[in-house]
Amino acid sequence: MAVSDVRAVALGGGHGLHATLSALRRVTKDVTAVVTVADDGGSSGRLRRELGLLPPGDLRQAFAAFAAEDGGTLWAEVFQHRFGGDGALAGHAVGNLLLAGLFEVLGDPVAALDEASRLTGISGRVLPMSPEPLEIEAEVSGLDSEDPGAVRRIRGQVAVASTPGQVHRISLHPVGRQPRPPHGCVEAIEAVLAADVVFLGPGSWFTSVLPHVLVPDLYDALVRTTATKVVVLNLVPQPGETAGFSPERHLDVLFEHAPALRVDAVIADRDSVPDPASLRRAALRLGGRAHLGAVADPVVEGRHDPDALARCMREALGLDGGHHGHRG
Amino acid sequence: MAVSDVRAVALGGGHGLHATLSALRRVTKDVTAVVTVADDGGSSGRLRRELGLLPPGDLRQAFAAFAAEDGGTLWAEVFQHRFGGDGALAGHAVGNLLLAGLFEVLGDPVAALDEASRLTGISGRVLPMSPEPLEIEAEVSGLDSEDPGAVRRIRGQVAVASTPGQVHRISLHPVGRQPRPPHGCVEAIEAVLAADVVFLGPGSWFTSVLPHVLVPDLYDALVRTTATKVVVLNLVPQPGETAGFSPERHLDVLFEHAPALRVDAVIADRDSVPDPASLRRAALRLGGRAHLGAVADPVVEGRHDPDALARCMREALGLDGGHHGHRG
Repeated sequence: MAVSDVRAVALGGGHGLHATLSALRRVTKDVTAVVTVADDGGSSGRLRRELGLLPPGDLRQAFAAFAAEDGGTLWAEVFQHRFGGDGALAGHAVGNLLLAGLFEVLGDPVAALDEASRLTGISGRVLPMSPEPLEIEAEVSGLDSEDPGAVRRIRGQVAVASTPGQVHRISLHPVGRQPRPPHGCVEAIEAVLAADVVFLGPGSWFTSVLPHVLVPDLYDALVRTTATKVVVLNLVPQPGETAGFSPERHLDVLFEHAPALRVDAVIADRDSVPDPASLRRAALRLGGRAHLGAVADPVVEGRHDPDALARCMREALGLDGGHHGHRG
Repeated sequence: MAVSDVRAVALGGGHGLHATLSALRRVTKDVTAVVTVADDGGSSGRLRRELGLLPPGDLRQAFAAFAAEDGGTLWAEVFQHRFGGDGALAGHAVGNLLLAGLFEVLGDPVAALDEASRLTGISGRVLPMSPEPLEIEAEVSGLDSEDPGAVRRIRGQVAVASTPGQVHRISLHPVGRQPRPPHGCVEAIEAVLAADVVFLGPGSWFTSVLPHVLVPDLYDALVRTTATKVVVLNLVPQPGETAGFSPERHLDVLFEHAPALRVDAVIADRDSVPDPASLRRAALRLGGRAHLGAVADPVVEGRHDPDALARCMREALGLDGGHHGHRG
């Protein structure tokens, strides 16, 4: 299967974005990752608090995915390696520290990320969705046993991702400032407008996928771009933030946060969709067609198989006859 | 001036080794750095204590020197960049963290250092003098105001380098084990035996230069190699460990620690040698000839000028007519 030169942009974060990028690099040579910068947990959270930098963890995942696909398996391994032990470095990923160093040396995060691509010899581009560290805030119900309908505001990616309550709505703002909408990364906006195809998801729905449509100028670019727009759904609901969510509920939540956004295709795993007709209707409400394929990794539960996902992407984009895919 | 393909090995540590490597890369394409692993201070000391790894700081200096000479100025800058602030990462050099990550991922330090060369695209090789972290112990007098002749044992590179007393003799042993002589790095020993020329110094005399002759099998290789052996002296005595030492005292101390070692040349800065005749005699006691050149940086005190040092190296090696050099 020949690799095309379609200009693709993938928006997301974490393991979900890693999966999209791994598959997408088998579909096209020209891939730009646009990455959430709202993480406040673990190594990323410690770095953003200690050094006042963009949280590097989701950016690192994108580099690791590109490096692994480009034959830079050692770079991928080093980026992902976490220090052990019980000291000051325990849990820090080496790639996070390298990216943090580049942020400090070069000042501008986009310049730093472009240099990181050059230094590591990867062919993809990694951009932040915003040049500033962002914070997620969620309206959550079900936290109060005496008043289950009461809505509380929960702050921070870790808190939102792990809430035992039900997330209704999220918002996004820069940290430690007057509340104002976040700025989008200019290069990311340009990439979305120039793309042939844009992918959104899979990933933690409220904390890695939806944040992209909550950056006003990035949302505007997603609405205006002439690119084919494809949503890739998760294989299983995320414990915590999307516990009990059906595939169509994921699409409805996207629509509630991005009412002007229309998509062309929705990719879902055939075996993870209990009610295909309902999903097709939900996709149509967003303007798109559902593509149900066997995209789950047969061994590791909850993970996409990169080759199978790549086949389904090609089918959704009409890049081949579709004889490898499975149209739902 | 053409760059030769003489096989050169430079032994040292810290800023001194950085200076040798910067000059040497202008003399020959084939340079191997053999680096002390006895540092216990700063970022290196924290890493070796926290993670049980080789202290990476002197190795990092060698990488930064190679990277800067090979056009990898951003790698050099990133390697040398230290995190600021007052948090857990404050003071850590990014290159130290990257090397520590590679040590953990690859297990074997030589494999890790070779991969670091490949990943950063530098053409030099960086090897540790020993595959195990080492500790320096020094016999120091003058610490006791009531008995200035009393000799105490001082442990650790930081303590020795900054002692207000007079260092007489150092020894080297692996950390936290039964006292035994340290093992040399096999690849470093092979490099010394295969070299056309071997450089020792400049640098902190007791803590970066002499440790190499205290690793028994490395010392043995230095004695046996057919390479031309060149000692490069410091421009100024090191406050603390060599305060008040004349250039010839540096050579005498080397001879006391390495009585079987013969050298072919001693490079010193003309303006830093108060008594050239005395230095020539001291060099002859080691079997070598003194080359006094104008090798000091005219701007930064205590630093060698790489171009001037390279000219003096060529002269000492007979690689050109010597019309650039200044024979003492």
